[in-house]
Amino acid sequence: MKYSPSWLQQDHLRQYWRDDLVAGIVVGILVIPQSLGYALLAGLPPVYGLYAAILPTLAYAWIGASNTQAVGPVAITSVMTAQALFLILPAHTALADYALFAALMAALVGIMLLLAGLLRLGWLTQFMSRGVVAGFISGAALLIAIGQLKHLLGIKLQGDTLIKMLQSGWQHLGETNLPTLWIGLSALLTLLAARRWLSSSLVRWGIPPRFASLLSRMTPVVVVILTTALSAMLGLEQDGVRIIGSLPAGLPAFLLPALPDIQTLQQMLPAAGLIALIAFISSASVAQSFARKRKERFDANDELIGLGWANLAGSINQGFPVTGGFSRTAVNVEAGAQTPLAGVISALVMALVLWLFTDWFYALPLAVLGASIMAAIANLIDLDTVKQAWRFDRADAWAYLVTALGVMLLGLQMGLLAGLLLSFATLLWRSSQPHLAVVGQVGDSAHFRNVQRHIVRTWPTLLLLRIDESLYFGNTQSVLDRIESELNAQPRVSDLVLVMSAVNHIDLSAQQMLEELNGSLLARRIRLHLAELKGPVMDLLQGTPLLRTLSGQRYITTLDAVQQLAPAPPPPEYHL
Amino acid sequence: MKYSPSWLQQDHLRQYWRDDLVAGIVVGILVIPQSLGYALLAGLPPVYGLYAAILPTLAYAWIGASNTQAVGPVAITSVMTAQALFLILPAHTALADYALFAALMAALVGIMLLLAGLLRLGWLTQFMSRGVVAGFISGAALLIAIGQLKHLLGIKLQGDTLIKMLQSGWQHLGETNLPTLWIGLSALLTLLAARRWLSSSLVRWGIPPRFASLLSRMTPVVVVILTTALSAMLGLEQDGVRIIGSLPAGLPAFLLPALPDIQTLQQMLPAAGLIALIAFISSASVAQSFARKRKERFDANDELIGLGWANLAGSINQGFPVTGGFSRTAVNVEAGAQTPLAGVISALVMALVLWLFTDWFYALPLAVLGASIMAAIANLIDLDTVKQAWRFDRADAWAYLVTALGVMLLGLQMGLLAGLLLSFATLLWRSSQPHLAVVGQVGDSAHFRNVQRHIVRTWPTLLLLRIDESLYFGNTQSVLDRIESELNAQPRVSDLVLVMSAVNHIDLSAQQMLEELNGSLLARRIRLHLAELKGPVMDLLQGTPLLRTLSGQRYITTLDAVQQLAPAPPPPEYHL
Repeated sequence: MKYSPSWLQQDHLRQYWRDDLVAGIVVGILVIPQSLGYALLAGLPPVYGLYAAILPTLAYAWIGASNTQAVGPVAITSVMTAQALFLILPAHTALADYALFAALMAALVGIMLLLAGLLRLGWLTQFMSRGVVAGFISGAALLIAIGQLKHLLGIKLQGDTLIKMLQSGWQHLGETNLPTLWIGLSALLTLLAARRWLSSSLVRWGIPPRFASLLSRMTPVVVVILTTALSAMLGLEQDGVRIIGSLPAGLPAFLLPALPDIQTLQQMLPAAGLIALIAFISSASVAQSFARKRKERFDANDELIGLGWANLAGSINQGFPVTGGFSRTAVNVEAGAQTPLAGVISALVMALVLWLFTDWFYALPLAVLGASIMAAIANLIDLDTVKQAWRFDRADAWAYLVTALGVMLLGLQMGLLAGLLLSFATLLWRSSQPHLAVVGQVGDSAHFRNVQRHIVRTWPTLLLLRIDESLYFGNTQSVLDRIESELNAQPRVSDLVLVMSAVNHIDLSAQQMLEELNGSLLARRIRLHLAELKGPVMDLLQGTPLLRTLSGQRYITTLDAVQQLAPAPPPPEYHL
Repeated sequence: MKYSPSWLQQDHLRQYWRDDLVAGIVVGILVIPQSLGYALLAGLPPVYGLYAAILPTLAYAWIGASNTQAVGPVAITSVMTAQALFLILPAHTALADYALFAALMAALVGIMLLLAGLLRLGWLTQFMSRGVVAGFISGAALLIAIGQLKHLLGIKLQGDTLIKMLQSGWQHLGETNLPTLWIGLSALLTLLAARRWLSSSLVRWGIPPRFASLLSRMTPVVVVILTTALSAMLGLEQDGVRIIGSLPAGLPAFLLPALPDIQTLQQMLPAAGLIALIAFISSASVAQSFARKRKERFDANDELIGLGWANLAGSINQGFPVTGGFSRTAVNVEAGAQTPLAGVISALVMALVLWLFTDWFYALPLAVLGASIMAAIANLIDLDTVKQAWRFDRADAWAYLVTALGVMLLGLQMGLLAGLLLSFATLLWRSSQPHLAVVGQVGDSAHFRNVQRHIVRTWPTLLLLRIDESLYFGNTQSVLDRIESELNAQPRVSDLVLVMSAVNHIDLSAQQMLEELNGSLLARRIRLHLAELKGPVMDLLQGTPLLRTLSGQRYITTLDAVQQLAPAPPPPEYHL
């Protein structure tokens, strides 16, 4: 934890303050439309999106692990917050109460992140496979994009799953407001076109690439300004176009989060855990990728602590959960941010807007906010991962698909849990059905390979069996069955050598299994030998009944075993 | 599945009918006191224990996988049934209804076992480690033994956990009935003494061992006969000694199990699943150990099907869940049973008792039933496993302790779940923190071992790193961290060889991790090589971006890699 950030040192400030000032102003302006939209996603009035961005940005600048990460509300955690509170709070909860429960969620998320960081639990997140992460983000992004249709069409659309949304949308489709649709659709197409072509066109016109990319990222701000002006001039509100309306002016009040009863708290904790998990994973992946580009060190546990304080800071300011966002961080980097000072500046810009300029947003059509969310989120739908997984790791592809479909059909939490469970089940299944290979000698070398893949020498009375998995309670029975069936296939065997080069652990159940195998082989006059036991496994077996009762020998190498056990003039047999 | 059992063939019958007749009669008589007691454990009147033993025994004789297994109620599944129904059914459920719900539990258990057998899911049970199984059985046995104190003291004792039982026992301790205590205690001491010394004494007096063991196993029957006679003659009922009282005469009625509403069914299913799991594991271990002694084949899936039909058969006869029991099977074997005909005979014996002799049990003191349960169950407390685990697999010892304590403090289901979760968590933890070893060449051999354990040759520009675990999403980060720290420790390295002999699988997350590592090493002018990739892993990687972009080579053996990559006149460095 950095209590006195290095960027506050004078020479740092002198060197970078101009870069950071520019980047901070650019980011501060750009995130305004996003933040307004994400507040709607979280089930809150738009202005709460700004409330949630100020103190967390300052806290992260002070404590966080990354020089260029920009934190604030992001689409997925906002929707997770709304879905969780929707299930927990009674219907018709007053908006002011709802906001305090959203702040409580931020506080819980903050505490969990902070604890995880202090306990150095950053490694725990590696238990989410790439398939599950990509499936979750893609499914959530698609669900959010579809949810934005309500703003684009100006209709009602309820529900937290795809089916409920489509049903609700179908019912209300007749109420589509055409002026809303036109303005939303034009905004969306402009944003998508700008993302697709603007940057490369600007480069072709001679503008430096970084600046071109920055300009194209600022398109949402331009679209917001133009459509707001248009909406105000034409009085679109009279045509039924829903607009933001008056935002309360002034900085957010300091209010403690809601004080829940025990039952509500118990219901909120699992949701807070999942939000914290997703917040950390997306933030860490953003911060890590930019740190790599800038050749800076990235510490996952410092990032947890920074995000934890950011959420706690937001929670006393009516803020909902926040994390590091890809687009705002990319803008920050491209606008030239060098130190967290840029974040401080952007927080000041947002505070200034809240203080003086809330009126300017009055006529901004909600359809335009919806279009910017859709455009921002389209990027998150990641089909490359599932394509790659389908080719190279089918199980992970299934994890992707189950997670993505689960998210869309069952909701974000259930989808994520389904994906996690599937990926753990796959892991167990895989280790429970280990690969065993009968091996033979390659020529006269010390090398032994699978008889089914290589031309190797074998002996009718000697069976060399390589076990390609650690032995533990979950695969003792399968391994035993395979050993028995190989022995049946080679009835003249008098010596069985288990080649343990790929066995990294042998637990008690497996030790007892081997002990029983040893006994039952002895009764059949077959000796059991162990070869290539690794150091850590040898340590483990020292003094166990297995080693005491072993009918055969232990050999350092398979070659040693063969030299001792193979019949004297080896009658060669060749397998393909 | 055997629809026409081989033991029904004439020559089998002719050869074995005398053996089976004797064994069947012996078992039929011996299991009567047990069955009466286990019905009490299941929360039912004693006579239901006989109801639950007749049809299941016949069904298992027809279908089951073992020639000598004797099925019927056993202590642990009986208590599990009572604990589950106690939580699900409303208090003050009428006894007749309760019995039909117990029968429903048997039906659900039967269906689950049958389905598991048909789907050939026998291997699934290997996921319970020895520590968890032993911990569960030991904890449950201790809990049951303590619960029997109520019969021994003649007091009330309520609750499904140790603490509740002790509290309740403490409250009622003053109500202890002394005649009950005396008769119960003498029965218990007689039984324990007989178990400890009778068999060996009989052998010393010249009785053949098998017969001696059988006689000593019949002690409970003798104790029941003597105490019942004593109780009847002295009229102990008048002294406040609780006795069985009149049992309804006649065979059990055929009644369908209770028809539950959906909600009750949902609550019963998890409990039924756990009862089925425990029923199968204990039955399979009994049948397997006797099959091994008799050199017969044992098929886990046939056993599942046999137990499934046994439970289903019992459920239409007001029976509660049954499984193979160790003591009744041991008696069956020692009494000379050769085929399932013995089971048929024992079912007929029990039917005969129900038909004609129920009056004979009138004066049997409950304290004697309690004593026989305590004596029977004392054997199940397995301290050897935990001692062995503590020495050779500390994690499994913890799994034992958590399961056993969980069973006693939280109840059977929660304790079992806690143990299972802990053993899976251990598995994940272990695979997430893999062992990596820097290896070097042993002399001039083709053998490479850990530099920290062996005297080996290494090279300053070449790092050989053996990864001792399959690579998957759960350990990518740990592996990456370890690789980086080894590279930092050896700054002159220009070639990194990952020795993959112990890597049995590389999932998508790990493939991407290696790809990123490859890229980041390339930027530092370090080439990444892979050696000793196994066949299945090579198949997996074929065509992946990792192999396409790999900066170095693939080598069949580590020796090949060293011959190519080690600096020409190898400047030897020796490590201890």
